[in-house]
Amino acid sequence: MENRLKEDLIEAGKYGRDPERLVTCYEDLDPERGVIRPTGTVANKKIRDYAVARMIEIGLEVRIDKIGNIFAKKEGYVSGKKSVICGSHLDSVINGGQFDGALGVFAAIEALRRLKEEEFKNERPIEIVVFTGEEGSAFGLTLLGSTVLIGKLSLEEALKIKNKEGKTLSEALEQIGYLGNFTRALDDVEYFIEMHIEQGPVLYNKKIPIGIVENIAGIAWVYATIMGEGNHAGTTPMNMRKDALVAASDIVQFVNRYANKMVTELGSATVGTVGKMNVFPNGTNIVPARVEMGIDIRDVKFENMELLKKKVVEAINELEKIYGVKAEVTLPITHLPEPLASEVVEAIEKSAKQLGIRSTRMNSGAGHDAQNMATKVKTGMIFVPSVRGISHAPMEWTDWEDVENGVKLLTETLKNLSSM
Amino acid sequence: MENRLKEDLIEAGKYGRDPERLVTCYEDLDPERGVIRPTGTVANKKIRDYAVARMIEIGLEVRIDKIGNIFAKKEGYVSGKKSVICGSHLDSVINGGQFDGALGVFAAIEALRRLKEEEFKNERPIEIVVFTGEEGSAFGLTLLGSTVLIGKLSLEEALKIKNKEGKTLSEALEQIGYLGNFTRALDDVEYFIEMHIEQGPVLYNKKIPIGIVENIAGIAWVYATIMGEGNHAGTTPMNMRKDALVAASDIVQFVNRYANKMVTELGSATVGTVGKMNVFPNGTNIVPARVEMGIDIRDVKFENMELLKKKVVEAINELEKIYGVKAEVTLPITHLPEPLASEVVEAIEKSAKQLGIRSTRMNSGAGHDAQNMATKVKTGMIFVPSVRGISHAPMEWTDWEDVENGVKLLTETLKNLSSM
Repeated sequence: MENRLKEDLIEAGKYGRDPERLVTCYEDLDPERGVIRPTGTVANKKIRDYAVARMIEIGLEVRIDKIGNIFAKKEGYVSGKKSVICGSHLDSVINGGQFDGALGVFAAIEALRRLKEEEFKNERPIEIVVFTGEEGSAFGLTLLGSTVLIGKLSLEEALKIKNKEGKTLSEALEQIGYLGNFTRALDDVEYFIEMHIEQGPVLYNKKIPIGIVENIAGIAWVYATIMGEGNHAGTTPMNMRKDALVAASDIVQFVNRYANKMVTELGSATVGTVGKMNVFPNGTNIVPARVEMGIDIRDVKFENMELLKKKVVEAINELEKIYGVKAEVTLPITHLPEPLASEVVEAIEKSAKQLGIRSTRMNSGAGHDAQNMATKVKTGMIFVPSVRGISHAPMEWTDWEDVENGVKLLTETLKNLSSM
Repeated sequence: MENRLKEDLIEAGKYGRDPERLVTCYEDLDPERGVIRPTGTVANKKIRDYAVARMIEIGLEVRIDKIGNIFAKKEGYVSGKKSVICGSHLDSVINGGQFDGALGVFAAIEALRRLKEEEFKNERPIEIVVFTGEEGSAFGLTLLGSTVLIGKLSLEEALKIKNKEGKTLSEALEQIGYLGNFTRALDDVEYFIEMHIEQGPVLYNKKIPIGIVENIAGIAWVYATIMGEGNHAGTTPMNMRKDALVAASDIVQFVNRYANKMVTELGSATVGTVGKMNVFPNGTNIVPARVEMGIDIRDVKFENMELLKKKVVEAINELEKIYGVKAEVTLPITHLPEPLASEVVEAIEKSAKQLGIRSTRMNSGAGHDAQNMATKVKTGMIFVPSVRGISHAPMEWTDWEDVENGVKLLTETLKNLSSM
C-alpha cells in the first residue's frame, strides 16, 4: 500500500522537471528533484491529467469547476450529511519542489483508495479537491482557486487575470482542458482537511512526524516600483545620480532589519522577504532607471503583519527624500491570519493517538487554501516534516515514512470526521 | 550641408527604436528617441547597411574585417604617408540613445563628404572606421572590435564568445553579413580621432560646445554571484535564512557609499555602479537563492580604480561571514586609464581656434574605442555636449548646432592632421 502513494508522487514529480531552468543551491542534495509547473503550463496539465486518471481508477466521479478546480466525490451512505473535503493543489512555484501541494492531492487519492479497499462505509460524502493556482506563480494572486470558490473574488474577475505571456486565466485553463462547467457551492460541506508538507524546519528539528495546524499566518504583499534616472555609469558623477537600485537595496535591507527587530523585540513570528526584484535596463554600465520589487510579509497576528507592512510602505515613501527617486506602491494581496477549527484539530489529534503517531500543535507560516476554506467550513491541516525545512526549492524533500504516517493519519481522520 | 548629417542621424536613429522595450524615465523628454541595437541584431545590421551605403555614395572603398569592423578609405596624394583614421561605433546599449557612437560614424562620413565637395587634397589617407561591439551589450566585452584590432584579444577567442541566445559572435556577424575577410594592421596609421557625445553633464552645464579629451577613465568590471538558500518566505524564520538578495543589497549600498567617500575624501573622479542584478528564482514568496551582479568601477587614475575594486571584492568576500552566503567573483574587464596624445589634443585645439569655436580640455568618464587605439597610434577625441548629461538612455540628446560645431571641427582637424 505504501508504495502506491510513493509511486504516484515519483511519477507526478516528473512533470515540470526542467533541469536547465532549475537553480540548485544545496550542493549535498539532489537538484534533480525540482519542478516548474505554474497554472496553465504543459507540466500543470500533465500532472492534473495524471491525478484525474487515478481518481477515475478508483471509481470516483470527477468534475471541473469554472475556475479549473477539480472535484471527485465518494458518496456517503447516510443521506443529508454534509461532505468532508480533502485535498490541496498541483501547481508549483518557479523552481519549486515536488511535494508542495502534490502530496496533499495524492495522499487524498490514496486515502480514498484505502477506504475503498477496506470497503469502509463513510456516513458523509468524502470528496477530493485540487485547487487551481495556489502559488500565484503564473497569475500573480495566490490561493486563486479557493479564493474564487469561497466567493472572495468573482469568477469573472479571476478569469480575466493575465499571465506574463498576456494570456488570461480563462484562455490558459481552456488550453490545458481544465475550464469546466461545474459549480460547487459550499452549503453542503461540513469539513475541509488539507495534508501538506510543513515547509519549515520545526517538525524536522524536533523529530516529530506530525504537525496539527492551529493558525495560518496572514500574508501581505507589497509591490513597489522605484523610478530613478537611467544614465551612463561612467560619466554621471556620484552626486548627480538618482540610482533606482541603490534606493531599492535600501528597502531590501530595511525589510530584513525590521522583521528581525520585531522577532527579537516582540518575540513575534514575523517574516519579511524581498523575493522578487527586476532591474531596468539592467546593464552593468548603466545607472539603473527603474526597479520593481515584490515584498512578502507574514505573521499569525494581524497587528504584527500590519505593523511591518506600514513600516515598509513608509520606508519606500521616504526614498524620494533620500535618493531623489520616485516610488509607487501597490498592495496586491492581503490574506488575514486564520485560526483553524478546534473541532478538526481535536479530531486529528485523536486520530493520531489511535494510530500511535506522535504529533504537535503548531502554526503555519505558509499560506494554504485551507485558510480560505476556514472562513466557510470547519477546517484543519496535517503537516509532515520537510527535510531541513527546505521548500519552494528543488531540494524540498519529505521522507517516505513521514509520507506514510501522514496518509495513515489523513485516512483515519477522514473516517472519524465522516461519522462525526 | 548641415541638414545632411542631421538627416543621416534621424534616419539611422530609427533602427532599433522599439517603444515596447524602451524604459522612459524623464517625463519631460521624448521617450521616442531611444534605440536598442546590440551587435548582431537586425537593427544593428540595418544601421551598418545604412552607413555603408553613405560611404559608397561618396566613392569610398569599403572593407569589412574579420571581427566585423568596417573601414572606408579616401587615398592620400602623398605616397608613403600614414593614415589618419576617424570613426566610432554603431551598436548601442539596451535602452540606449541615438547619438552614442552613431554621431562619430556619421560625422566622419559627413567630414569626408565635405572634403570631397571642397576637392580637398589630403596628403595622408583618411579613413573611416566603424567598430564592432563597443558597448558590450550583446557579447559581454566592451570595445570588442578595437580590442581585437590592436591585438589585445585574439580574433579566434573573440569570435567564439556567445551572446545570451547562445550564438557566437562569428555566427552573429555572419548572419547580418558582416563577417569579412579584410585584415587591417595598424603599421600604416599615424592618427586616430573619434568624435563622440560627452555622455556627462560638464559641457552642457558650462555651456561650452566642444570638449577635447586628455584622459580616458579606466574601467574595471566586477561580476559577483551570490549563493544563498532558496526557501519558502513564510516558513523560514528570520534567523535561519541565507538570503542572497539581502547580501547583494549590502554590496549595492557599499559600492555607492565607498565611491561617494572617495569623491569626498580624495577629490577623485571615481564612480561605482551596480548596473545589473538578476535574482533567482525571483518569486515574491521565495527567499532568494542566488543573485548575479554586474559592477562598474571607473577612474582616470589607475590607483583609485584599483582601490575601489579591491574594497568591493573584499566586501563581497566578507558576505559569507555576515550572511552565511557563498560568493564568487570574476573580473571580466579591466581597461587601463589612457592618456591621449598631446599632439592630437593640440591639433584639435588649434583647429577649434581657427574656426572660432570655444573648447575646453577634459577627461572622459566613459570608455571609448579611442582608449584602445591610443595604445597603438596617436589618438584624440572631440566631445560635444549631452543635454542634461543624459546618455545610455532613450532621452540622450545633443542639439543640432552642437552636432554641426562638432563635425566642422572634425573636418578641420582631419585637414590639419592630414598635412602634419
